[in-house]
Amino acid sequence: SIDSDRLWNSLMRMAEIGPSPNGGSRRLAMTQEDAAGRRLLLDWVEALGCTWQRDKAGNLFIHRPGRENRLPAVSLGSHLDTQPLGGRFDGVLGVLAGLEVFRTLADNDITTRRPLSLIVWTNEEGSRFAPAMGGSGVWTGRLDEDTFFTATDSQGVSLREAIQACDEAGDLPLGEQDLDAYFELHIEQGPVLEEQGDPLGIVTGVQGIRWYDLSLRGQSAHAGPTPMSYRHDPLMAATALIQALKEEVLADPEGAARLTVGDFQVVEPSRNVIPGEIHLQLDLRHTDDERLAALDATVERLARTAAEAEGVTLSLERRWHSPVTPFDDTLIASLVEAAEALGLEAPTMMSGAGHDAVHLSHVTPTVMIFVPSRDGISHNEAEYTEPEHCALGTQLLCDAVLARAER
Amino acid sequence: SIDSDRLWNSLMRMAEIGPSPNGGSRRLAMTQEDAAGRRLLLDWVEALGCTWQRDKAGNLFIHRPGRENRLPAVSLGSHLDTQPLGGRFDGVLGVLAGLEVFRTLADNDITTRRPLSLIVWTNEEGSRFAPAMGGSGVWTGRLDEDTFFTATDSQGVSLREAIQACDEAGDLPLGEQDLDAYFELHIEQGPVLEEQGDPLGIVTGVQGIRWYDLSLRGQSAHAGPTPMSYRHDPLMAATALIQALKEEVLADPEGAARLTVGDFQVVEPSRNVIPGEIHLQLDLRHTDDERLAALDATVERLARTAAEAEGVTLSLERRWHSPVTPFDDTLIASLVEAAEALGLEAPTMMSGAGHDAVHLSHVTPTVMIFVPSRDGISHNEAEYTEPEHCALGTQLLCDAVLARAER
Ligand SMILES: NC(=O)NCCC(=O)O
Ligand SMILES: NC(=O)NCCC(=O)O
Repeated sequence: SIDSDRLWNSLMRMAEIGPSPNGGSRRLAMTQEDAAGRRLLLDWVEALGCTWQRDKAGNLFIHRPGRENRLPAVSLGSHLDTQPLGGRFDGVLGVLAGLEVFRTLADNDITTRRPLSLIVWTNEEGSRFAPAMGGSGVWTGRLDEDTFFTATDSQGVSLREAIQACDEAGDLPLGEQDLDAYFELHIEQGPVLEEQGDPLGIVTGVQGIRWYDLSLRGQSAHAGPTPMSYRHDPLMAATALIQALKEEVLADPEGAARLTVGDFQVVEPSRNVIPGEIHLQLDLRHTDDERLAALDATVERLARTAAEAEGVTLSLERRWHSPVTPFDDTLIASLVEAAEALGLEAPTMMSGAGHDAVHLSHVTPTVMIFVPSRDGISHNEAEYTEPEHCALGTQLLCDAVLARAER
Repeated sequence: SIDSDRLWNSLMRMAEIGPSPNGGSRRLAMTQEDAAGRRLLLDWVEALGCTWQRDKAGNLFIHRPGRENRLPAVSLGSHLDTQPLGGRFDGVLGVLAGLEVFRTLADNDITTRRPLSLIVWTNEEGSRFAPAMGGSGVWTGRLDEDTFFTATDSQGVSLREAIQACDEAGDLPLGEQDLDAYFELHIEQGPVLEEQGDPLGIVTGVQGIRWYDLSLRGQSAHAGPTPMSYRHDPLMAATALIQALKEEVLADPEGAARLTVGDFQVVEPSRNVIPGEIHLQLDLRHTDDERLAALDATVERLARTAAEAEGVTLSLERRWHSPVTPFDDTLIASLVEAAEALGLEAPTMMSGAGHDAVHLSHVTPTVMIFVPSRDGISHNEAEYTEPEHCALGTQLLCDAVLARAER
């Protein structure tokens, strides 16, 4: 069985790299901090005698040979990049749980039948470069290379440039490795498990996600002498749109729609100037693809209405669409069983967050394990998961990977 | 009479300093561009043999001796600083009209009875450093020195540091000079004169202004797994507040209330993160002090309601209050007469924008002249005033200053 303290220590040690002001992590994708986090992991796996390779997207593949290395590898993994003010567990737990599995196998001199592959995906967060889950997307061929590499951050740096600057590009061809299955342990990032008092959950799939870039352009003018009726104020259009859209989202019959405005930017802001231009980033989600499609039409309709009411022009760009994704039924059932073997009744649940597992599920049987997030909080420096929950999830991951690798 | 072409040329020459991308000006207060604009003016007035002095706020006083220099000076002026994407006329016209008056007097070998003082006020715009009209405020004692000097820009640079960095501080004590009157020519920055077909207007006073800094703090969390009902989203509180406040402003019985949100900042924005903190800058105006006071109470009430509804905390700071300000009745009447002498029926009107004249009106008889703004547009690179309107306003200014200086 896995070593709970060793797992916790590796989590806390990783959190020392790119610490954020209030006890969280700041390792944005393909920054020096992200590269330093990867380096720490590589030091650890090299000490275990593992070899590793990278592809040109910077995805990292750590190999643990099996008894029959011509068989497709059983894979597990997650990501090490974080939000600007992110937590210490989001993504990191899945990667360091994989390390703990490798260490446990080494402690017990176990060589599995199939080889194992621990994968660190590039730019899962999507915060610095849109869309999220980029590395797994481009690796599985579900995100085109151009979109992946030419995405730019707020400073105009492309992901291609950032990967080069971090020296994180490798020569493994994209999508080359044959996988037998993909397992990902992750924190829930929501309140369900904690509220139910469950120490872990088996994830049946991921809700649909749509991302939008909106620009509203009006006419900047003086705050004082310009009567309200003369204005073409894109900020008033933007705030009206957001409130109207929120009402539609709250009116969702299943109460399952979610709307987030992660960025609201005034171009060249000045207190006594009616803004000339506003940029918005919207994130819209639903567990039902049809409802999400209906909301997509609503975004467009409400945005046009709000822009017309203020006499401003609208540009609406659909940046990303990740449809509702089901995971593998057989793996789900086997994980529920494996949890029972640990004496736990693990509920099945949908994921509210996107994960690299979404893309992997299209190329290999895939499943995820969730552990609780304190107060349901994630993408926040205060993100926390109890050591015993981290350990339980890692134990279940270890058992499931071992069983699959012997198959 | 003044030289229309020479005036226009000096306006266009000044606009070459700190040009903005689309044909406007960018000379933010106490930047190198602002200092370069002042230097150009000083070259021009030195060529006329004028001397000048500065006070520690960087206010610039250009002297033209009279026949009786112990008498208080007749003053005229405005400002050379601009908005980030500002126009070529706002403030600049008043200063360069003063230069043109001095040049015209020199051409005609006129020495007035009273001395003249052409004044360039520091940081009139208030865009880089709040509040606006800072130089005239501190000079007249209506703004306390500490508030003036410790105001910081978005980079954390204080106005005191910026004045030092530009080497624009002088040793003239604040408020030292005795003034007989203050005249300011300015573009209207609104649509009234153009709509009425009037080439100039006499300003009877300035509407009241209130500035607010609002911060809303919630809890950042993941856009995906966080149900709408669990959120403490300060962006939703901010947008609800803005829409509610706009409704109140539009319901103003006189239709005279004005609301502008010049800045809306998300702290550490990330598309898939519910924002943790929002900063807003509000600008609220009315021609009636009582109504403005009622709106002030409304801001506080609506902000509390919006914050409570989202379960976020509110901090509301009143940054500035400039009450409704009347100008000098005698000067207003004499300007209307002087316009008639030019064959013009000049309407009287309130100003929607604040001006340095507001502060000056508390220490000396003060009046302003407005000329039309094309399409009523100002605080915009496209700001434009016809050469003949600039010239007419300058002629009226010249006539009025001369008459006052002979008195
Ligand atoms: N797990 C996680 O935070 N993923 C980011 C992608 C998303 O926005 O759901
Ligand atoms: N004239 C002018 O643009 N002044 C700035 C102060 C204000 O916001 O009214």
